[in-house]
Amino acid sequence: MIETIYLEEPKLNNVIMIEGLPGIGNIGRIAAGYLVEKLKAKNFAELYSSDFFPSVILQKDGIARLLRIEFYYYKGEKNDLIIVIGDTQASTPEGYYDLSNAILDVARKFDVNLIITLGGLAREEFSGKPRVVGAVNNEKLLERFKNYEIIFDGNLVGSIVGVSGLLVGLAAIRGIDAISLLAETTGFPIVIADPIGAEAVLRVLMKILDIEIDLSELEKEARELEKKIKKTEEFQKRMIKEILSAKEENKEVSYIG
Amino acid sequence: MIETIYLEEPKLNNVIMIEGLPGIGNIGRIAAGYLVEKLKAKNFAELYSSDFFPSVILQKDGIARLLRIEFYYYKGEKNDLIIVIGDTQASTPEGYYDLSNAILDVARKFDVNLIITLGGLAREEFSGKPRVVGAVNNEKLLERFKNYEIIFDGNLVGSIVGVSGLLVGLAAIRGIDAISLLAETTGFPIVIADPIGAEAVLRVLMKILDIEIDLSELEKEARELEKKIKKTEEFQKRMIKEILSAKEENKEVSYIG
Amino acid sequence: MIETIYLEEPKLNNVIMIEGLPGIGNIGRIAAGYLVEKLKAKNFAELYSSDFFPSVILQKDGIARLLRIEFYYYKGEKNDLIIVIGDTQASTPEGYYDLSNAILDVARKFDVNLIITLGGLAREEFSGKPRVVGAVNNEKLLERFKNYEIIFDGNLVGSIVGVSGLLVGLAAIRGIDAISLLAETTGFPIVIADPIGAEAVLRVLMKILDIEIDLSELEKEARELEKKIKKTEEFQKRMIKEILSAKEENKEVSYIG
Amino acid sequence: MIETIYLEEPKLNNVIMIEGLPGIGNIGRIAAGYLVEKLKAKNFAELYSSDFFPSVILQKDGIARLLRIEFYYYKGEKNDLIIVIGDTQASTPEGYYDLSNAILDVARKFDVNLIITLGGLAREEFSGKPRVVGAVNNEKLLERFKNYEIIFDGNLVGSIVGVSGLLVGLAAIRGIDAISLLAETTGFPIVIADPIGAEAVLRVLMKILDIEIDLSELEKEARELEKKIKKTEEFQKRMIKEILSAKEENKEVSYIG
Repeated sequence: MIETIYLEEPKLNNVIMIEGLPGIGNIGRIAAGYLVEKLKAKNFAELYSSDFFPSVILQKDGIARLLRIEFYYYKGEKNDLIIVIGDTQASTPEGYYDLSNAILDVARKFDVNLIITLGGLAREEFSGKPRVVGAVNNEKLLERFKNYEIIFDGNLVGSIVGVSGLLVGLAAIRGIDAISLLAETTGFPIVIADPIGAEAVLRVLMKILDIEIDLSELEKEARELEKKIKKTEEFQKRMIKEILSAKEENKEVSYIG
Repeated sequence: MIETIYLEEPKLNNVIMIEGLPGIGNIGRIAAGYLVEKLKAKNFAELYSSDFFPSVILQKDGIARLLRIEFYYYKGEKNDLIIVIGDTQASTPEGYYDLSNAILDVARKFDVNLIITLGGLAREEFSGKPRVVGAVNNEKLLERFKNYEIIFDGNLVGSIVGVSGLLVGLAAIRGIDAISLLAETTGFPIVIADPIGAEAVLRVLMKILDIEIDLSELEKEARELEKKIKKTEEFQKRMIKEILSAKEENKEVSYIG
Repeated sequence: MIETIYLEEPKLNNVIMIEGLPGIGNIGRIAAGYLVEKLKAKNFAELYSSDFFPSVILQKDGIARLLRIEFYYYKGEKNDLIIVIGDTQASTPEGYYDLSNAILDVARKFDVNLIITLGGLAREEFSGKPRVVGAVNNEKLLERFKNYEIIFDGNLVGSIVGVSGLLVGLAAIRGIDAISLLAETTGFPIVIADPIGAEAVLRVLMKILDIEIDLSELEKEARELEKKIKKTEEFQKRMIKEILSAKEENKEVSYIG
Repeated sequence: MIETIYLEEPKLNNVIMIEGLPGIGNIGRIAAGYLVEKLKAKNFAELYSSDFFPSVILQKDGIARLLRIEFYYYKGEKNDLIIVIGDTQASTPEGYYDLSNAILDVARKFDVNLIITLGGLAREEFSGKPRVVGAVNNEKLLERFKNYEIIFDGNLVGSIVGVSGLLVGLAAIRGIDAISLLAETTGFPIVIADPIGAEAVLRVLMKILDIEIDLSELEKEARELEKKIKKTEEFQKRMIKEILSAKEENKEVSYIG
């Protein structure tokens, strides 16, 4: 069960959708979240799924809410934007596909003509200034994005796992242009936020969107987001750990099969 | 497949639903079960799910029954109560959401105006007298519950995992007020019952419901419940262990892919 | 997807269903399979499920077939019998419930008035002559089966995991009498066949059914069945092992999230 | 959700379907892929499934696409062929059955009269020249294929895991003849390509189809395919590893159940 609840039905034109969910270095989530804040984008829809981890998040005041994906809009000069952020991705392969398709349903509803997904590219021996690697879903886009300091090289990247990848792949079948922008990062452990990677994708994104935002508070924001996301991640890991620890215990019981 | 079978269709007014299922320290299960016993609440419905662990429980006399969730009612002076207890939670993320929604269907059927979920808050370095931490699903409830010795602090708790949390989150979407009451506990290993935590949530609950029940037999009851619940937990862990132990074996076989 | 294919539509009266699938010590499978052979029971239906392990079994001549559950009938003097044997149980909790319900659909189609499930009761420190422990699904059956050397004691057994248990529990909801007969066994490793346990449940079963069968070839049959079942089990374990071994490997790759 | 998208609707007669997906030694995938290339077979359909691993594959030029199964046709002298290759099999038991049934839907649409599945048979102590072991889905086929240097011996092979096996088993229920051809291989680790095994199944296949193809470039092709497939496999293993590594970590968190 996936449900998208609309808080508002904005009129949008010439729409570009930007997606950034938790993932490697939380680069996509940090970059898209920062964009929401700096553009003062407005929350118009929320998506809930029974494939999300079965828990609620507590806000500082003691109010709990379900894990969710949030949709924001921003009315710009050249393009209106839909920005997709959220608490989590999915917990099963099918859940990833369903979530990606539900996001594409929103894209189609608003006649989105380009989807940009943001993420990290984990490289074990990486250090230094991150490059931004791109993946598009048709050949014309290689031409369109060739002058944006994006590296297109299938030898550098094998796969894009999760919603950032699936949106690009599924959009092709629906005939929607899409590009994934991935900043190089160390990537382990995955819960550590990488604001430097987020900055790298935001710099490319600003050029594509032809907008200017102040990146000076990015690191501070990244640290706060990291704390929030870490909590959720840790609970999930802890529960997995609990289940697996059954393995080490060795109690005397009689049972039946 | 989830099925709720009604044994009786009680007429209830001004209904508060109280939920306590197995979890950290089994605090919710112990507290709600003790309430059922002391109020002589009456069993009116049973819920079965194909997402529960695939086994039956043997009662002392040799009669087996499916794992289930039980609904009890109690007709009180100020409020009628529905108390939800049971043998288990769910085995998949989707199963947790489905179970929580099926419980909310019962809440709606009886026009429940407040849901109170009971549980434990595991803190690794906790010792001493447990405090009760709360989580509500809207701002008005912070005001309503501010004088009940409940601590509201999102920094203390990050997430509430399982039915206790999901009921609060999903009720918000359905427009039903809900609060989770969580007693501090050590929480590991999770199968050890914590009657002291159960007492803490019951003391707050009695004040909210404005009823008085004798807590003197709580510890004894807790120990008996613990034994029952432990059996079910251990079977589940044992089966997981069996599967994982495949890893360590190393037999000579030829196989095909 | 579960599909039951009928090869024949027998007319049966006063029907008792006997179930024995692979499990602890393969006691149920051995006992029910031996019954099929000695009574020359006739195969009239096959059940296929997409929840079974995704493989085919090769017969000696090089012909492959899907994993399946088989239904046999035997027209007896006092009772006609339906005997349920098969290659496997299920792979998910939901799969277990679905399989058990599909078997109950067959029971209802032939107006079965008693279901007897056969299995093993693993006890770590067990040795010697196995007793047969019983579990029924209503109180009247305790009276009916009190003179058959069946031990009814919920303290001895906590749960019955798998189809043998679920059939008893689910039959109660459908109003069908059911009893599980479980022979004590060491139970580890679960792939080792226990013909002594199988003999114990068969002795009780013969008394209940009031039939006589020659048990002298049971051990030989058990060893052959063991070989067949072991192959299937080992393939399943090997695949799980393959997946888990990913954990220990540590290759240099770059990937994206 | 499984979707088969047709790029073309070819008219085919007297059709044999050949399947080769990634598996043990990638023998089936290499053999079928080589056949596609050497026969210049034409891609006419693509199958997408939400049970596939949730990622996209990057091609060398930076264009990403979903994981998929591809159908090719070749109009031959005696038989027209449908060749099925792809990036992956499935991620759940149900996914394997659904995928196999979706492939059989294509077989039925084109009135396929024989299905030949290609794969490897892993034998731990195997070395030397691989034999080809066969498995058919009815007795008449044993006679039909007795003169093709195929070994039929159920003692040599216990099970055939995955689509290669399920196609043979499920085709029997639909009344379609099918044979699995499996070359002996060492099989571990499973990501290492075995072009020698692929050559062995291709030699038998050429005789059955009565066609001649040049096998001299097989090893080179195998190495390139291996690189591609390895990338996908490693991402999948890495993700599993990430999840399992949660087990070893031991952070101080407070959580709730």
